[in-house]
Amino acid sequence: MCVLGLGLIGGSIVRAAASAGREVFGYNRSVEGAAGARADGFDATTDLGEALARAADRDALIVLAVPMPALPHLLGHVREAAPDCPLTDVTSVKTAVLTAVTEAGLLDRFVGGHPMTGTAHSGWAAGHGGLFNRAPWVVSVDDHVDPEVWSMVTALALDCGAHVVPARSDEHDAAAAAISHLPHLLAEALAITASEVPLAFALAAGSFRDATRVAGTAPDLVRAMCEGNADQLVPATDRIIELLSRARDSLAANGSVADLVDEGHAARTRYERFPRHDIVAVVVGAENWRQQLAAAGRAGGVIRSAPPTLGNPR
Amino acid sequence: MCVLGLGLIGGSIVRAAASAGREVFGYNRSVEGAAGARADGFDATTDLGEALARAADRDALIVLAVPMPALPHLLGHVREAAPDCPLTDVTSVKTAVLTAVTEAGLLDRFVGGHPMTGTAHSGWAAGHGGLFNRAPWVVSVDDHVDPEVWSMVTALALDCGAHVVPARSDEHDAAAAAISHLPHLLAEALAITASEVPLAFALAAGSFRDATRVAGTAPDLVRAMCEGNADQLVPATDRIIELLSRARDSLAANGSVADLVDEGHAARTRYERFPRHDIVAVVVGAENWRQQLAAAGRAGGVIRSAPPTLGNPR
Repeated sequence: MCVLGLGLIGGSIVRAAASAGREVFGYNRSVEGAAGARADGFDATTDLGEALARAADRDALIVLAVPMPALPHLLGHVREAAPDCPLTDVTSVKTAVLTAVTEAGLLDRFVGGHPMTGTAHSGWAAGHGGLFNRAPWVVSVDDHVDPEVWSMVTALALDCGAHVVPARSDEHDAAAAAISHLPHLLAEALAITASEVPLAFALAAGSFRDATRVAGTAPDLVRAMCEGNADQLVPATDRIIELLSRARDSLAANGSVADLVDEGHAARTRYERFPRHDIVAVVVGAENWRQQLAAAGRAGGVIRSAPPTLGNPR
Repeated sequence: MCVLGLGLIGGSIVRAAASAGREVFGYNRSVEGAAGARADGFDATTDLGEALARAADRDALIVLAVPMPALPHLLGHVREAAPDCPLTDVTSVKTAVLTAVTEAGLLDRFVGGHPMTGTAHSGWAAGHGGLFNRAPWVVSVDDHVDPEVWSMVTALALDCGAHVVPARSDEHDAAAAAISHLPHLLAEALAITASEVPLAFALAAGSFRDATRVAGTAPDLVRAMCEGNADQLVPATDRIIELLSRARDSLAANGSVADLVDEGHAARTRYERFPRHDIVAVVVGAENWRQQLAAAGRAGGVIRSAPPTLGNPR
């Protein structure tokens, strides 16, 4: 397999996949990342043409692990040099990637992915083989998805130690807006609000540090995530502004935040008790398999070992 | 010394103060809390009259460690039975306590306090003697504050392992709104927003769990904090709604959240680099000592060993 981009995620995949016994080679645009990988004993190059020719020669699974802004350019090269290779990505906004892949004419062999891990650090040196251990890794079950490629991508995620959550790209993006991108905006806004109050930083400790931790993420990464998912993030932001405005008005008029606090506590409790279970009954490639997997993922189902496929039952 | 209320904070003070070699006795309204304390080898009663008579007899420092709603009633009893004892509290909203103490006619010997530690759990069993270790503990320097009582309260906080931050009650409350109460509202609102998105809980992991952690706090505690500090929390909420609304409009119109993210990252960076230092040059009781301590606290100063007092230099 071939990993294009050796930053935090790509670099961690190289390490985890090699640990799992896979033959893996990588490409990184900057000398620094490729040299770091080679110094740690991995197979890496700064020559994109070489990496893609090698992938095409072996029909290797290609993992797109570059930031969203670099993706269209990279897809152009894949289209030229390795158009028939199975293809996945690890980007946080799945609809935007789907559009870029479709525009590059590479949809047939593409199955999107998103390992849901931290992004506070970046670069080869920040990665490690345990990054995906028990983390959710979304593998897309959009309507076009090919069962064979889907099983390859799922096998990679499992080899990296992740728990696979099957999901549609649009549903993934709506969820990511609520659980990841909106929290980033809240952390940024909270840091600014506190910075304007004279004594606030002097008193700030645990809960403030936790609540603003993700505001320490590099602004470029935060912007790429949030701006790439604007279609979902705008309504999520509208919703939270509505909730906060109602609580603010109730507090000012009646001295009460009961509605917000009671509902919030109930929602958090539902989250803590959200049932997770193993998906076992779906046969990849059978009729309606994509819809069945999407429904199972929505209900808290995860895949922790390779599922049965049509013609290859367990 | 006498601790009234043996919940998380009061119970932890009893343990920490006893460990520091202090003679400490406690009162708790419910049998459960007092029995728990006694079972652990501490001196505790459910008889308020007995506890207050004992405090008055020894001129003991009284620590008010009951929730805000119970405070006026308790202050009435203190006024009756032990009106001359030095008095402090550990409540999260200092202006409201100051008002209640003033109304009870107990201002002369009162110095407000607030150990800034977690509140996710409650009750005697949740406490421990290390709870305040290196945590900020605000000791008020309002205009009325008596230097002798101030030094007693500071000594207690230091004995508990805390770092004392001197602050005015109104400035404390503005800061607490920004760094503690507003984060609670955000966590509640975020939990609700995510609960409405089908796939969100299935994908939620580290950053969402962190961002909504304080929504797991008992609703009564959150309401008491937020509603008790409405005067400061309303404008803080207005400010964050303004910041989020601007970012939302910029995202919808221009596809950019650059302003919010750049400013938020800069604010978080200033927080990380916020200079902390030991306050050493202020003599308690000397001219303008309260103003000097308030200014030093605002600038990141903390007290980690007993400061010199007028007539008792170090």
